[in-house]
Amino acid sequence: MKEIKAFVKPFKVEDIFHHLFEAGFPNLTVSKAEGTGNLENSDPSVSTHFSITDSHVAKIEIVCNDKDVDQIVTIISKNGRTGNPGDGIIYVSNVEKAYRVKNREDISL
Amino acid sequence: MKEIKAFVKPFKVEDIFHHLFEAGFPNLTVSKAEGTGNLENSDPSVSTHFSITDSHVAKIEIVCNDKDVDQIVTIISKNGRTGNPGDGIIYVSNVEKAYRVKNREDISL
Amino acid sequence: MKEIKAFVKPFKVEDIFHHLFEAGFPNLTVSKAEGTGNLENSDPSVSTHFSITDSHVAKIEIVCNDKDVDQIVTIISKNGRTGNPGDGIIYVSNVEKAYRVKNREDISL
Repeated sequence: MKEIKAFVKPFKVEDIFHHLFEAGFPNLTVSKAEGTGNLENSDPSVSTHFSITDSHVAKIEIVCNDKDVDQIVTIISKNGRTGNPGDGIIYVSNVEKAYRVKNREDISL
Repeated sequence: MKEIKAFVKPFKVEDIFHHLFEAGFPNLTVSKAEGTGNLENSDPSVSTHFSITDSHVAKIEIVCNDKDVDQIVTIISKNGRTGNPGDGIIYVSNVEKAYRVKNREDISL
Repeated sequence: MKEIKAFVKPFKVEDIFHHLFEAGFPNLTVSKAEGTGNLENSDPSVSTHFSITDSHVAKIEIVCNDKDVDQIVTIISKNGRTGNPGDGIIYVSNVEKAYRVKNREDISL
């Protein structure tokens, strides 16, 4: 199994979720975070400055089967983009085991 | 080392923590998130609908030695279940290195 | 690529970020969490007790190239320490893939 972690614009979460749901991926978790990285050029001819947290981001976490990674990444990318800088990043990591809380069932098999 | 990440009902966190503490695992981090995945059948004969974030979840993060994974998963499952749907999921991932902030000591060895 | 996840004192985040930025690592995400693990000995001769979440912690997440891990860990450790207990922990995990949301570009290659 894989974990897909996406940092996206908060106002894009609903669109992303709807398309994931339509495609058969209804399970995700969302939380709030703040991101840095974007230089703010208030006056590019003079200087650049940044604030420590210059944007609110939504963090989406999804655990899925290996075969579903490409489709989920595509849906997040397609529905998370705005055309402006700072649309975010999607990371894929390995998950070794997954269990249901209710009965400790190993669902990674 | 392994990272155990559990998404559980917020009101179960205290019980889970007490039992982890008693078993010798006092260190964890908790944060808030929102989860989707539960269809709400307001009227099953007509249609189903969902809200984008239909439940508050607590995210527990624990890093532990490989040998402790089974025991910790069991404690979270046993003390996190309610008997109702949506009790949550527990994921186990590999952690390559761990360091103390205070002295950069590598505690993964 | 690697994911570096650090749980540090919230008031240390700005210092850590400034030094990461100066070193050429401007991208990170910060979120709030609560941590346990510190016994509070109100009266050590009688008993120990703890509260379920006895400290606010900031969670920093950074994804970087393998070669930058040591430098980033050093910066976080150096600028995150207070000299008191509970300064926090830094974890390093493997990231298999990373994509830009805006164009689904694979930036892990």
